[in-house]
Amino acid sequence: MVKLVLVRHGESVANAANVYTGWNDVPLTKKGEQQARKAGCLINQISDFHPTHIHTSVLSRAIVTANIVADVCNFLYLPITKTWRLNERHYGALRGLNKDISRKVFGVEQVLMWRRSFDSVPPKQGSPIVDRRYRLCDQHLMPRAESLHQTQLRLMPYYYDEVASRMMRGEDQLIVAHGSSLRALIKKLEGINDHDIVKLEVPNAEPIIYTMNDDMRIIDKQILN
Amino acid sequence: MVKLVLVRHGESVANAANVYTGWNDVPLTKKGEQQARKAGCLINQISDFHPTHIHTSVLSRAIVTANIVADVCNFLYLPITKTWRLNERHYGALRGLNKDISRKVFGVEQVLMWRRSFDSVPPKQGSPIVDRRYRLCDQHLMPRAESLHQTQLRLMPYYYDEVASRMMRGEDQLIVAHGSSLRALIKKLEGINDHDIVKLEVPNAEPIIYTMNDDMRIIDKQILN
Repeated sequence: MVKLVLVRHGESVANAANVYTGWNDVPLTKKGEQQARKAGCLINQISDFHPTHIHTSVLSRAIVTANIVADVCNFLYLPITKTWRLNERHYGALRGLNKDISRKVFGVEQVLMWRRSFDSVPPKQGSPIVDRRYRLCDQHLMPRAESLHQTQLRLMPYYYDEVASRMMRGEDQLIVAHGSSLRALIKKLEGINDHDIVKLEVPNAEPIIYTMNDDMRIIDKQILN
Repeated sequence: MVKLVLVRHGESVANAANVYTGWNDVPLTKKGEQQARKAGCLINQISDFHPTHIHTSVLSRAIVTANIVADVCNFLYLPITKTWRLNERHYGALRGLNKDISRKVFGVEQVLMWRRSFDSVPPKQGSPIVDRRYRLCDQHLMPRAESLHQTQLRLMPYYYDEVASRMMRGEDQLIVAHGSSLRALIKKLEGINDHDIVKLEVPNAEPIIYTMNDDMRIIDKQILN
């Protein structure tokens, strides 16, 4: 038996402002930092959880959350991998838009569709990404907008190769990522269908603990808050 | 031309208490955190410094300093490697001892010899290291006390394989480590002899910038404070 813990970053400045963020790099709020510390305290209470690796995105709100959790849990020494494959879903042209305003501009139904349906892709951003952190990535892989499905397709290779492979060797793992990138992962892990995934919310900084058997099947799930 | 920046961690609780630390894992003081932020601001002023990788030890005071510098410099997304080979020199049985008391117990000359001579090894600690962070290391490599020379011998393979190899590809690098592990590295980089190394001090959180040519020879050195 092995444990996988998923944590969504603490509240970001964009969460607080109710703005679409995606691949925009925004910091945590003070509240978000406190939430990250609380998540660390909750993870400390998990019995027999000894991760060998921390996985996070290349976005600061997830990295800082991971660093705070690592500090609280005395995991600072653990190797940490930061990968664009764990980035939040790319919200395309919606990035930086207030969610209420976007509903007024595009209509409630259309926005709900973009936000919650599995295959719907929001309008693409006009220009390619210019950011040093993606400089060494294959530019053909870099999205200008993503559906939740596309997010899942670019995330799962990392999960199988870098996370599940370690769990297969009996090593607990910790992932600190984002609301929709974690929804995409949870959909696959739990076999949730395209319809039911609409209802799944992943709150900030509430650790989700999966206990897996040797075949990487979930035998227990707990959410700490 | 390529740049290598070395940073010693900010003031630790043990620095403040004038205690030998070595492989003991002690946190930064508030002052140490501020020093780390200042180091980040100083690094921001280096023209044309774009590291591709951060290297640090498995000791919290260096990791937290690296994380603070990364935050200030907008380097959070960079890959970071934490390795025992960049750990502080292992002070053996001196660990946890106040430096003034150790001089009274062992004598000023003996302590100066242990602290500053290149080959002198302090008394060994009695028992092997029991710490999860070294669990996957070859236990035969784990020291119970080290001379500065021994520190250099276990550090240089990492430097050549993981730091210099990247600089050979034109990539700037950032190392955040410890007073004596940096002394050991600087001795090799600058070709300082066994006698003169005694006088070299590396202050907390004052970035040292080396500019190297294509043969990894130093063509410029600056210290920022």
